[in-house]
Amino acid sequence: MRIPFNQMQDVLYKLFVKYKFTEDKAKLMAKVYAESTLSGVNSHGINRIPSFIEYIENGLVKVDAEAEKVESFGSIERWDGHFGPGIINATKCTNRAVELAKHNGMGLVALRNTNHWMRGGTYGAQAADANCISILFTNTQPNMPPWGGKDSRIGNNPFIVSIPREQGHIVLDMAISQFAFGKINDYKLKGEKLPYFGGWDDNNELSNDPEKILLKERGLPIGYWKGSALSIILDMLATLLSAGNSTYKIGLKEFETGISQVYLCIYPEIFNDKNLQQKLISEIIDYTHDVEPMTPGDRTYYPGERSSLTKAKNLKLGIPVNEGIWQKIIALSI
Amino acid sequence: MRIPFNQMQDVLYKLFVKYKFTEDKAKLMAKVYAESTLSGVNSHGINRIPSFIEYIENGLVKVDAEAEKVESFGSIERWDGHFGPGIINATKCTNRAVELAKHNGMGLVALRNTNHWMRGGTYGAQAADANCISILFTNTQPNMPPWGGKDSRIGNNPFIVSIPREQGHIVLDMAISQFAFGKINDYKLKGEKLPYFGGWDDNNELSNDPEKILLKERGLPIGYWKGSALSIILDMLATLLSAGNSTYKIGLKEFETGISQVYLCIYPEIFNDKNLQQKLISEIIDYTHDVEPMTPGDRTYYPGERSSLTKAKNLKLGIPVNEGIWQKIIALSI
Repeated sequence: MRIPFNQMQDVLYKLFVKYKFTEDKAKLMAKVYAESTLSGVNSHGINRIPSFIEYIENGLVKVDAEAEKVESFGSIERWDGHFGPGIINATKCTNRAVELAKHNGMGLVALRNTNHWMRGGTYGAQAADANCISILFTNTQPNMPPWGGKDSRIGNNPFIVSIPREQGHIVLDMAISQFAFGKINDYKLKGEKLPYFGGWDDNNELSNDPEKILLKERGLPIGYWKGSALSIILDMLATLLSAGNSTYKIGLKEFETGISQVYLCIYPEIFNDKNLQQKLISEIIDYTHDVEPMTPGDRTYYPGERSSLTKAKNLKLGIPVNEGIWQKIIALSI
Repeated sequence: MRIPFNQMQDVLYKLFVKYKFTEDKAKLMAKVYAESTLSGVNSHGINRIPSFIEYIENGLVKVDAEAEKVESFGSIERWDGHFGPGIINATKCTNRAVELAKHNGMGLVALRNTNHWMRGGTYGAQAADANCISILFTNTQPNMPPWGGKDSRIGNNPFIVSIPREQGHIVLDMAISQFAFGKINDYKLKGEKLPYFGGWDDNNELSNDPEKILLKERGLPIGYWKGSALSIILDMLATLLSAGNSTYKIGLKEFETGISQVYLCIYPEIFNDKNLQQKLISEIIDYTHDVEPMTPGDRTYYPGERSSLTKAKNLKLGIPVNEGIWQKIIALSI
């Protein structure tokens, strides 16, 4: 079924008000969840609502908590999220990094004790809307083995880079895993194999069989040993800059909470040549768009292009939603 | 054959003085090339010297050029490398980013019109020696197809992250390609297949056959579509921040020159908890080291650990070097 964007936003707003969020916060969260779903990221949009509500009910997400600055030096600040909602903390810290960047050219906020920010690209787009470049990342619970190891001890640590652009921002939003477990499960439900290796089977062999991978949930990092190293170093940066929990510490708890994140913004308009910068980006886009496709009829995309096409389409036609999930959310909101 | 580190450094110093470098610059370059080779990265150490000398002889590397600051705002600066030697420009810009970081918490230098910096990890280690975190990247000539495209139009854009650590720095130094062409050639010479896909064959199929990949030199990005997007966005950042050449522009020339780079440093000691930070990093290392190996007898490493082990070994035993290349360098130096 397809739900119009405004209807989804309204239902979610009602839901969050019911769960004791202030009107402003309910409005923000409804917007972020609905926009992520609009962009086709249901896994971190509407599909995530039931588990988010459980987190609230279990006290893992504190509805009233406010992220707070605890230390600062120059253009760098450390914040504590006090286990508040990930979306609200992330929005606040992105705003703050943008402010710092506009004053100093660059700004960095390291945030500890926060919760899942849902779709990381949300904050990349937020920074880009404010004319800033952003580099953002988060650690997570362990879900991939470090290269050479048997058990999951590193996180898929989503990594976001965004660049403001008048005809549509550039937004890279990628987890360090080759496939999300949600995606692997989609293949399983369709009875299909993954197009490439996505994790290890229970015989410790790399596999593209979703059923076999899901037995032990050991995901494959992008680029094998390279993604493993990238995941480790992003976790180190988020942990030491925020003085927060590492993937190791997060994994000691039963549920993923109290995670650590970094928000780095750069304000490129400090150089008074915005037109030149936009032209340079366009040249790169044109050059990659212009390539002969590997498969006839196919084409290439710049980072974020696909999801903005999906967004435009769903805004017209309504957002595709699983009916069972939608009914569940309607029930929760009443 | 194995050459002692000091001997290699001395021969290279003599070589660079012969090619009209000042004594200081000759010393620096000899050190960087010898140290990269000491760490096992012969491809960007001693093996690269003959082509570097050709670049000088063709006028693509200007021996006397000095990188120069062209614009600045707060903790961000734009520099022009004036086509000087990549190693000298990179050392200078890393130093400058460290200085900016020590004053402001963070500093960024965007450098245009420079040449190949050889081993990117060199500058990650340099920043870490100065107690700074670094995030560094460079664009390159096109050597991989953008995802979905047929021809190489994106670069393997090496990406470096480093963190200072008392018992040995953490240094991630990775190109965005799954395998370097030099590495693929090593497999070809040994008559072996790559352990994983490394590029496309001439039938436009992903392949692990080095001979077939080398026919068209179309490398595979790490994580397929993910690395493709990461490569594009790093190129955009380096290009727009430096107002320099993109991979597109670099590819218009016959040889790779006039490339663009970003040097971002963070000074973590602004938070007065160095001991806590070191402890948090150690916990992450211990947790990943401690994992049961996937293959009995194997082990896991933190980013940069392998190359520091190689460095220690080669310092004792001498540096393994291809005899033909060593003779060539001796001949060049006389």
